[in-house]
Amino acid sequence: MAQAVNLANKLSLFSEHWKPKIVAGFNGNDIMVVKLKGEFQWHSHAETDDFFLVLKGRLTIRLRDGDVHLGPGELYVVPAGVEHCPVAEEEVHLLLIEPAGTPNTGDPATAVVKTAL
Amino acid sequence: MAQAVNLANKLSLFSEHWKPKIVAGFNGNDIMVVKLKGEFQWHSHAETDDFFLVLKGRLTIRLRDGDVHLGPGELYVVPAGVEHCPVAEEEVHLLLIEPAGTPNTGDPATAVVKTAL
Repeated sequence: MAQAVNLANKLSLFSEHWKPKIVAGFNGNDIMVVKLKGEFQWHSHAETDDFFLVLKGRLTIRLRDGDVHLGPGELYVVPAGVEHCPVAEEEVHLLLIEPAGTPNTGDPATAVVKTAL
Repeated sequence: MAQAVNLANKLSLFSEHWKPKIVAGFNGNDIMVVKLKGEFQWHSHAETDDFFLVLKGRLTIRLRDGDVHLGPGELYVVPAGVEHCPVAEEEVHLLLIEPAGTPNTGDPATAVVKTAL
Protein backbone atom coordinates (compact mmCIF):
# COMPACT_ATOMS: atom_id res chain seq x y z
CA MET A 1 0.00 0.00 0.00
CA ALA A 2 1.41 3.38 -1.00
CA GLN A 3 2.22 5.67 1.92
CA ALA A 4 3.32 9.26 2.36
CA VAL A 5 6.83 10.00 3.63
CA ASN A 6 6.63 11.91 6.92
CA LEU A 7 9.76 14.05 7.02
CA ALA A 8 9.72 14.66 10.79
CA ASN A 9 9.42 10.92 11.40
CA LYS A 10 12.35 10.23 9.10
CA LEU A 11 14.41 12.91 10.83
CA SER A 12 13.66 11.35 14.22
CA LEU A 13 15.42 8.15 13.17
CA PHE A 14 18.97 9.53 13.22
CA SER A 15 21.02 12.21 14.91
CA GLU A 16 24.27 12.40 12.96
CA HIS A 17 25.15 15.53 11.01
CA TRP A 18 26.10 15.97 7.34
CA LYS A 19 24.91 12.48 6.30
CA PRO A 20 21.99 12.77 3.88
CA LYS A 21 19.38 10.00 4.06
CA ILE A 22 17.38 9.08 0.96
CA VAL A 23 13.63 9.05 1.63
CA ALA A 24 12.23 8.98 -1.91
CA GLY A 25 13.19 9.17 -5.56
CA PHE A 26 12.04 11.48 -8.33
CA ASN A 27 13.09 10.93 -11.94
CA GLY A 28 16.56 9.72 -11.01
CA ASN A 29 17.00 12.29 -8.26
CA ASP A 30 17.42 11.43 -4.60
CA ILE A 31 15.03 13.18 -2.22
CA MET A 32 16.92 13.36 1.06
CA VAL A 33 16.70 14.65 4.60
CA VAL A 34 19.81 15.74 6.46
CA LYS A 35 20.80 17.34 9.75
CA LEU A 36 23.56 19.92 9.67
CA LYS A 37 25.46 21.65 12.41
CA GLY A 38 28.61 23.68 11.98
CA GLU A 39 30.35 24.68 8.79
CA PHE A 40 30.76 22.49 5.73
CA GLN A 41 33.44 23.04 3.10
CA TRP A 42 33.45 25.24 0.04
CA HIS A 43 32.55 23.17 -2.99
CA SER A 44 30.54 23.18 -6.20
CA HIS A 45 28.77 20.66 -8.41
CA ALA A 46 29.73 21.16 -12.05
CA GLU A 47 26.89 19.04 -13.40
CA THR A 48 23.90 19.84 -11.21
CA ASP A 49 21.96 22.46 -9.34
CA ASP A 50 21.68 21.90 -5.59
CA PHE A 51 18.24 22.19 -3.92
CA PHE A 52 17.94 23.17 -0.23
CA LEU A 53 14.64 23.51 1.66
CA VAL A 54 14.88 24.30 5.37
CA LEU A 55 12.48 22.30 7.55
CA LYS A 56 13.79 23.43 10.95
CA GLY A 57 16.43 25.87 12.16
CA ARG A 58 18.32 28.47 10.22
CA LEU A 59 20.87 27.89 7.45
CA THR A 60 23.34 30.24 5.84
CA ILE A 61 24.58 29.33 2.38
CA ARG A 62 27.76 31.27 1.78
CA LEU A 63 28.35 32.21 -1.83
CA ARG A 64 31.40 34.02 -3.16
CA ASP A 65 29.29 37.13 -3.75
CA GLY A 66 27.23 37.10 -0.55
CA ASP A 67 25.29 34.95 1.89
CA VAL A 68 21.80 33.49 1.52
CA HIS A 69 19.88 33.12 4.80
CA LEU A 70 17.13 30.52 5.06
CA GLY A 71 14.62 29.73 7.80
CA PRO A 72 11.86 27.11 7.95
CA GLY A 73 9.78 27.01 4.78
CA GLU A 74 12.46 28.75 2.73
CA LEU A 75 14.32 27.22 -0.19
CA TYR A 76 17.27 28.09 -2.36
CA VAL A 77 18.71 26.42 -5.43
CA VAL A 78 22.47 26.81 -5.87
CA PRO A 79 23.09 26.84 -9.62
CA ALA A 80 25.44 24.26 -11.11
CA GLY A 81 29.06 25.29 -10.92
CA VAL A 82 28.53 27.91 -8.21
CA GLU A 83 30.80 27.57 -5.19
CA HIS A 84 28.94 27.44 -1.90
CA CYS A 85 29.50 26.63 1.76
CA PRO A 86 26.55 25.72 4.01
CA VAL A 87 26.82 26.94 7.61
CA ALA A 88 24.47 26.05 10.48
CA GLU A 89 25.26 27.77 13.78
CA GLU A 90 22.57 25.66 15.45
CA GLU A 91 21.27 22.34 14.16
CA VAL A 92 19.23 22.65 10.99
CA HIS A 93 17.03 20.07 9.25
CA LEU A 94 16.85 20.15 5.47
CA LEU A 95 15.18 18.56 2.50
CA LEU A 96 17.74 18.11 -0.29
CA ILE A 97 17.31 17.07 -3.90
CA GLU A 98 20.21 15.97 -6.07
CA PRO A 99 20.65 13.56 -8.96
CA ALA A 100 21.40 10.10 -7.58
CA GLY A 101 25.14 9.69 -7.15
CA THR A 102 25.98 13.38 -6.72
CA PRO A 103 28.90 13.64 -4.27
CA ASN A 104 27.93 15.95 -1.38
CA THR A 105 31.35 17.57 -1.38
CA GLY A 106 31.48 17.90 -5.16
CA ASP A 107 34.26 15.28 -5.16
CA PRO A 108 33.66 11.51 -5.10
CA ALA A 109 36.92 11.02 -3.19
CA THR A 110 35.67 12.92 -0.13
CA ALA A 111 31.90 12.41 -0.40
CA VAL A 112 29.81 10.61 2.21
CA VAL A 113 27.75 7.61 1.17
CA LYS A 114 24.07 8.50 1.05
CA THR A 115 21.95 5.73 2.48
CA ALA A 116 18.25 5.02 2.20
CA LEU A 117 16.16 5.48 5.33
CA MET B 1 21.95 39.53 -4.42
CA ALA B 2 20.83 35.93 -4.08
CA GLN B 3 17.81 35.43 -1.84
CA ALA B 4 15.90 32.51 -0.40
CA VAL B 5 12.38 31.78 -1.65
CA ASN B 6 9.90 32.06 1.23
CA LEU B 7 7.10 29.64 0.37
CA ALA B 8 4.51 31.19 2.71
CA ASN B 9 5.19 34.62 1.21
CA LYS B 10 4.77 33.25 -2.29
CA LEU B 11 1.52 31.53 -1.30
CA SER B 12 0.20 34.80 0.13
CA LEU B 13 0.38 36.41 -3.30
CA PHE B 14 -2.50 34.50 -4.87
CA SER B 15 -5.72 32.77 -3.89
CA GLU B 16 -6.80 30.80 -6.96
CA HIS B 17 -6.88 27.03 -6.87
CA TRP B 18 -5.24 24.47 -9.21
CA LYS B 19 -2.89 27.02 -10.83
CA PRO B 20 0.72 26.15 -10.02
CA LYS B 21 3.13 29.09 -9.70
CA ILE B 22 6.81 28.64 -10.50
CA VAL B 23 9.06 29.90 -7.70
CA ALA B 24 12.42 28.36 -8.66
CA GLY B 25 14.09 26.03 -11.12
CA PHE B 26 16.19 22.92 -10.58
CA ASN B 27 17.96 21.19 -13.47
CA GLY B 28 15.14 21.86 -15.90
CA ASN B 29 12.41 21.16 -13.37
CA ASP B 30 9.90 23.73 -12.19
CA ILE B 31 9.64 24.15 -8.41
CA MET B 32 6.08 25.34 -7.84
CA VAL B 33 3.59 26.24 -5.14
CA VAL B 34 -0.10 25.63 -5.63
CA LYS B 35 -3.35 25.88 -3.69
CA LEU B 36 -5.88 23.11 -4.17
CA LYS B 37 -9.46 22.74 -3.06
CA GLY B 38 -11.89 20.13 -4.26
CA GLU B 39 -11.26 17.20 -6.54
CA PHE B 40 -9.03 17.22 -9.61
CA GLN B 41 -9.34 14.75 -12.45
CA TRP B 42 -7.84 11.30 -12.89
CA HIS B 43 -4.70 11.57 -15.00
CA SER B 44 -1.16 10.30 -15.36
CA HIS B 45 2.16 11.55 -16.70
CA ALA B 46 3.74 8.97 -18.96
CA GLU B 47 7.16 10.63 -18.94
CA THR B 48 7.67 11.84 -15.41
CA ASP B 49 7.21 11.17 -11.72
CA ASP B 50 5.08 13.72 -9.88
CA PHE B 51 6.36 15.19 -6.59
CA PHE B 52 3.92 16.44 -3.92
CA LEU B 53 4.95 17.97 -0.57
CA VAL B 54 2.14 19.26 1.65
CA LEU B 55 2.89 22.61 3.30
CA LYS B 56 -0.54 23.24 4.82
CA GLY B 57 -3.80 21.29 5.05
CA ARG B 58 -4.48 17.69 4.16
CA LEU B 59 -4.33 16.07 0.73
CA THR B 60 -5.59 12.74 -0.48
CA ILE B 61 -3.99 11.33 -3.61
CA ARG B 62 -6.33 8.69 -4.98
CA LEU B 63 -4.59 5.84 -6.76
CA ARG B 64 -6.32 2.94 -8.49
CA ASP B 65 -5.15 0.59 -5.73
CA GLY B 66 -5.74 2.83 -2.71
CA ASP B 67 -5.47 6.34 -1.31
CA VAL B 68 -2.41 8.14 0.01
CA HIS B 69 -3.10 10.64 2.80
CA LEU B 70 -0.71 13.54 3.35
CA GLY B 71 -0.54 16.22 6.02
CA PRO B 72 1.95 19.07 6.51
CA GLY B 73 5.55 17.92 6.17
CA GLU B 74 4.58 14.80 4.25
CA LEU B 75 5.53 14.02 0.67
CA TYR B 76 4.65 11.48 -1.95
CA VAL B 77 6.04 10.84 -5.41
CA VAL B 78 3.55 9.42 -7.91
CA PRO B 79 5.58 7.23 -10.27
CA ALA B 80 5.48 7.97 -13.99
CA GLY B 81 2.52 6.40 -15.71
CA VAL B 82 0.50 5.85 -12.53
CA GLU B 83 -3.02 7.22 -12.64
CA HIS B 84 -3.85 9.53 -9.76
CA CYS B 85 -6.46 12.02 -8.64
CA PRO B 86 -5.63 14.66 -5.99
CA VAL B 87 -8.48 15.55 -3.63
CA ALA B 88 -8.49 18.36 -1.05
CA GLU B 89 -11.62 18.56 1.09
CA GLU B 90 -10.30 21.80 2.60
CA GLU B 91 -7.76 24.10 0.99
CA VAL B 92 -4.28 22.62 0.85
CA HIS B 93 -0.96 24.27 -0.02
CA LEU B 94 1.64 22.22 -1.83
CA LEU B 95 5.15 22.30 -3.15
CA LEU B 96 5.28 20.57 -6.54
CA ILE B 97 8.21 19.56 -8.71
CA GLU B 98 7.82 18.61 -12.36
CA PRO B 99 9.98 18.90 -15.45
CA ALA B 100 9.33 22.28 -17.08
CA GLY B 101 6.48 21.97 -19.54
CA THR B 102 4.74 19.02 -17.89
CA PRO B 103 0.96 19.45 -18.40
CA ASN B 104 -0.79 19.36 -14.99
CA THR B 105 -3.61 17.25 -16.38
CA GLY B 106 -1.29 14.93 -18.26
CA ASP B 107 -2.66 16.39 -21.52
CA PRO B 108 -1.38 19.63 -23.11
CA ALA B 109 -4.86 20.27 -24.53
CA THR B 110 -6.42 20.68 -21.09
CA ALA B 111 -3.45 21.83 -19.00
CA VAL B 112 -3.25 25.18 -17.23
CA VAL B 113 -0.39 27.53 -18.03
CA LYS B 114 2.11 27.59 -15.18
CA THR B 115 3.31 31.11 -14.54
CA ALA B 116 6.31 32.39 -12.62
CA LEU B 117 5.64 34.19 -9.36
